[in-house]
This record gives sequence, C-alpha cells and structure tokens, in this order.
Amino acid sequence: MTDNTPRKTSPAPLTLLGLGAMGTALARTWLAAGHPLTVWNRTPSRAEPLAGHGARIAPDAAEAVAAADLVVLCLLDDASVEEALTGVDLTGKDLVNLTTGTPSQARARAAWAQERGARFLDGGIMAIPPMIGVPESGGYVFYSGSSAAFEAHRRTLAVPTGTRYVGEDAGFAALQDVALLSAMTGMFAGFSHAFALVRKEDIDLKEFAPLLVEWLVAMAPATHSTAEQLTSGDYTTGVASNLAMMVAGNTTMLRTAEEQGVSSELLLPFMNLMERRLKDGHGDESTTGVIELLSR
Amino acid sequence: MTDNTPRKTSPAPLTLLGLGAMGTALARTWLAAGHPLTVWNRTPSRAEPLAGHGARIAPDAAEAVAAADLVVLCLLDDASVEEALTGVDLTGKDLVNLTTGTPSQARARAAWAQERGARFLDGGIMAIPPMIGVPESGGYVFYSGSSAAFEAHRRTLAVPTGTRYVGEDAGFAALQDVALLSAMTGMFAGFSHAFALVRKEDIDLKEFAPLLVEWLVAMAPATHSTAEQLTSGDYTTGVASNLAMMVAGNTTMLRTAEEQGVSSELLLPFMNLMERRLKDGHGDESTTGVIELLSR
Ligand SMILES: NC(=O)c1ccc[n+]([C@@H]2O[C@H](COP(=O)([O-])OP(=O)(O)OC[C@H]3O[C@@H](n4cnc5c(N)ncnc54)[C@H](OP(=O)(O)O)[C@@H]3O)[C@@H](O)[C@H]2O)c1
Ligand SMILES: NC(=O)c1ccc[n+]([C@@H]2O[C@H](COP(=O)([O-])OP(=O)(O)OC[C@H]3O[C@@H](n4cnc5c(N)ncnc54)[C@H](OP(=O)(O)O)[C@@H]3O)[C@@H](O)[C@H]2O)c1
Repeated sequence: MTDNTPRKTSPAPLTLLGLGAMGTALARTWLAAGHPLTVWNRTPSRAEPLAGHGARIAPDAAEAVAAADLVVLCLLDDASVEEALTGVDLTGKDLVNLTTGTPSQARARAAWAQERGARFLDGGIMAIPPMIGVPESGGYVFYSGSSAAFEAHRRTLAVPTGTRYVGEDAGFAALQDVALLSAMTGMFAGFSHAFALVRKEDIDLKEFAPLLVEWLVAMAPATHSTAEQLTSGDYTTGVASNLAMMVAGNTTMLRTAEEQGVSSELLLPFMNLMERRLKDGHGDESTTGVIELLSR
Repeated sequence: MTDNTPRKTSPAPLTLLGLGAMGTALARTWLAAGHPLTVWNRTPSRAEPLAGHGARIAPDAAEAVAAADLVVLCLLDDASVEEALTGVDLTGKDLVNLTTGTPSQARARAAWAQERGARFLDGGIMAIPPMIGVPESGGYVFYSGSSAAFEAHRRTLAVPTGTRYVGEDAGFAALQDVALLSAMTGMFAGFSHAFALVRKEDIDLKEFAPLLVEWLVAMAPATHSTAEQLTSGDYTTGVASNLAMMVAGNTTMLRTAEEQGVSSELLLPFMNLMERRLKDGHGDESTTGVIELLSR
C-alpha cells in the first residue's frame, strides 16, 4: 500500500537581505511559520529586533548568502542590489529579487546572476507591508524568471503572500507590476478630478465616495473587451459607447470642470488622444485605438 | 379595520420627448410596464415603431406636453431642450430632464421651468441603453431638483432603471454624473497606458486583463479614505503609501514606459502634481492634496 498522506516537510531555511518596512514584514511571517531565517541589513540596528523572533543575524551580506540556498532580496532599488552583492559568491544559489525595478533591470540582473552560477527569479510585490501575512488581503507577488527556482521554492515563497508566476522572461514580473501601478495611477487621477469637482459643494463626500467606488468597480471590466479588441485587432466589437459619443461627452466634462473652477489637466491628454482617433476616422470604435497612439 | 394591502394603482400616464437610442429604450420599458405613454420626436420616423407597442404619437411637442402631467425629456443637449419647448405651455407640469448637461445648465433650466409654472427635476443617466429595463445591470439615474416632483413620480421613474435622488439643488445630479464619468475617464486612461506597456510583449492580454480588473477593483476603495481626509482636512491619516514613496515609484513607471517605447503623457500630469505637493513639504500625506492643486 502506498502512503497518500502528504509528506510533512519541515520549513525550508532561507536568507533575506534588506529589513526595511517590507523586508521586516516578510521576515516576521517566515519566522512565524517556523522557517530558519538568516537576515542581513546594511544598518544593523534594524535587524536586532528580529533576533528575539528567532532570526539568525549575519554580520555581512556574504555570510548571509552563504547560510542558505534560497536568498531573497528586498532592497531599495537595483543599485542597492549591486552594492550589497558585489564580490559575494552566488554559486549554486537561488536568488529571488523582490526589489522594485524596471523590466530591463530585472533582465540584466537575471543575466548577471546566471553568470555567477545562480538561478534567478524576479518578483513584483502587489501588496503593502500590512497585507503581508494576511491571506484575506488579496496581496500577491508577480514572479518571473527561472521556473525551476520557482517550483523549488513555491511553498516557501507562498508563506508571506500569494504568488503568481508569469513566465521565464525575468522582466515580466516587473512589467506587469508596473502596468498595474500605472493603471492605478490613472484611476487615482480620475477620482481626484471627481473629488475636485464636488468638494466645494454642499455634498457629503462620505456619501459620494461609495457611489464613485461602485461606478469604478462596475466600469473596470471594460478592460476585458479592450484585451479582446487588442487581440483581434477589431476595435468596434461590443462597443456600447463609441468614440464619437464619448468625445461629445468630453465637452460636458470640460465645461463642468470650468464651471466648478477645476483644472482639466488630468483628463485632457486622454481626451486629446480620443479626439485624434476620432478625426482619423475611428468614430465607431471604442477607446482602444488610443493605445496605438501611445506607442512610439 | 384598515386595509394594509398596498393599493394597486394603475400605471401613471406620461409623455416622453426624444426617441434617440436612450429615449427609445426608456419608452419601451414604460410601455412594457403598462404606462399610457405619449411620445414625440423631431424626426417622426423614429417614433413610428413605438405605435405598435401602444404609444400615442403626438404631432408636435406642445401636444405631447399637453397629454400628461409628467413630461420626460431625453434630447441631445440643452440647446435641443430649448428648441423643442420654446412657446410650449408648461403650466402645472412636472418636467424631468434626462438630457445630459452641466450643473449650470440644469440650474438655469430649473429656474426657466419654474418661471413657466412647472416643477423641475434634472437627471443624469448612469447607464447605456442596453442596461435600461434590466435591473441586474446596476444602472441608475441621479435625480436632483424638486423633491416634491421626485416623490410624486418615483415609482414611474423607477420603471426603466434605478433612481438616486441627490438633493434640491438641480445641478447636483449633473455634477455627480459628470464626476463619475470623469473618474472613469481617468481609469480608462490608466488602463490604456497599462495595455500599451504590455501589448507588444509575449503576454496573453486575456490573461492579463483579469489581473488588471482585480487590481483596480481592489484599489478603488482608496476613494473612501480620500473622502474622509477631505472631510477632516488631515491628509496623513491611514496612509499606507505616502507621497514620498509614490513619487519614488513614479520613476520606475516612467523608466518602464521609456523602455517599452510608450509615451507617459497620460500619467505625467498627475505625477507632476504629486511632485509639486511633495516639494511643498507634504511627503507624509496621501495623494489627496493633489485635489487642492486642481482648484483654481
Ligand atoms: N513598502 C511597500 O509598500 C512596498 C510595496 C511594494 C514593493 N516594495 C518594494 O520593496 C522594496 C523594499 O521596500 P521597503 O518599503 O522595505 O523600503 P525601505 O523601508 O525604504 O527599506 C529599504 C531597504 O533597502 C536597504 N538599502 C538601501 N540602500 C541600500 C544599499 N545601497 N545597500 C544595501 N542596502 C540598502 C535599506 O537598508 P538600511 O536600513 O541600511 O537603509 C533597507 O533595508 C523596494 O524595492 C520597494 O519598492 C515596497
Ligand atoms: N446613449 C447613451 O448611452 C446615453 C447614456 C447616458 C446619457 N445619455 C443622454 O441621453 C440623451 C439622449 O441620448 P441618445 O443616446 O438617445 O442620443 P441620440 O440617439 O443621438 O438621440 C438624440 C435625440 O435628440 C433629438 N434632438 C437632437 N436635436 C434636437 C433638436 N434641436 N430639437 C429636438 N430634438 C432634437 C433627436 O431627434 P432626431 O431623431 O430628430 O434627431 C433624438 O431624439 C443625451 O443627452 C445623452 O447624453 C445617453
């Protein structure tokens, strides 16, 4: 008879470099889950509190890296990764870089790690420290790069927050991370304009906010049809409000902003591109064509 | 003994001026619900199909208005309302204007109606025609202006789609309508930029879109804390990511756009305002302060 009960493996040891706000949150969840954890931080005082939680504190990055096969980096930026790891032996290591960077930085770092005999995974953290260790928060990390390294450590990586592996190209995690943050920036700009319009009127903002949230949540799924249109190349399918109608609506938005004494600077660039597509003869399309105008 | 069973009232008669895409959708739901409906459209051919559904077709706007106490307008813009109703006797009528316009236009139209002996309600339709008559769609109309007129007709007005009365100020429906559309414009700009970043890579856009939607839906509730901060005047409360961190993150977004050959024109105005607030010494705040910079 075979034994079908899952094998109880003891939590894997790992090393973490960087104990800022995010690194500290990560460290605590690994320690709480019983993982033997070695930590290093450039400023040693930030590491000390973790000793009480069972962390082994390494005196320098080289000793920290030597302590485990899995080495997680959570430093300020790519330059700090370079600085922390210069001269450190990475042979045989699995490097997981949760430091925010651009896709190019991630790809260059992957090649750099490979040259030094390490497997490389890049991560883009879609969470803030209070969400770490809180599965209900919905936070997660985009991972890309070595799928072998991801498979080898997926259970350990899943301890602090959700994981989403998005491909062998080491740049894809950073790219999708930045894409989501960029979309959020647009949404924040949009609702900032909305609040600017209403805030000086006798309108209870705490009653208005839920309507705004509900509306944004209802309209966000428009991204699905944008994805379909970009994939098919036909920007007219399933269009409920076409560019011609939307450009007419823009006039009302601009006039209202004017009436309310609010600058339209946050909305104008998108409106201008909509108008350009309309003038180019795409009045029956959705706004998807604007995306083409953004590519140089 | 009193009779507590709700009184069955027969559906109230009403008049509708304007049978474009939206007017026609409204007309069909009132007819389907058994309301005696008189319609008028500038171009008569658009009214004809409704006769088969039981609508009475009026030969001109004056006769249409004379046919019922409740008169709903769904015309192109405020100028078409002026044109359609010039010289028409409005005494004793309840005018419900679902024509899109600015808050000022709504307020001026309310005064104009009052001078002519009519009660006035303005409406901002948060729906597209296919959502009319489909309660599950979540569509609704913002109403503002005469609360007496709203109370008198709330059941009739609720037939085609949801209703939300937002105050006696006739401009509030248009203002909140435009505010929501403006916020949506920002969100569309944001996800357009996101798609521009990823679309030339070997990334399945139909797998990426759900991540984008999930992220936007998760981040939309940030509006609640914006409303609270604007109300309290303290922009530092409950801030998870402050301006200083976000401005640092903007650099990664801008570099990534550059790497991907994507123009940052849709994000720059908001980023520039964030930077201005940061330079003004508000690094510990959220982005709420940007809203102040928008007001002239
Ligand atoms: N916090 C968030 O909400 C959040 C969310 C998503 C992603 N992230 C990303 O996570 C990473 C860490 O963020 P954080 O919030 O923990 O930042 P943080 O609190 O500012 O900590 C920065 C860390 O980087 C170290 N560091 C900076 N320059 C260094 C150098 N030249 N050499 C060695 N170490 C250096 C710092 O060490 P010292 O203590 O010696 O200064 C510190 O450990 C960043 O890439 C950030 O973008 C953060
Ligand atoms: N469709 C939507 O998705 C939607 C969503 C929210 C709000 N709205 C608002 O609803 C209103 C109607 O929209 P719609 O989609 O039905 O527009 P539409 O299909 O373009 O119809 C416009 C209507 O206005 C009439 N009209 C235009 N100029 C006129 C004039 N000078 N005098 C008299 N009638 C005139 C047209 O009559 P003719 O047939 O004679 O041209 C037609 O009945 C607009 O204010 C729109 O912003 C629409």
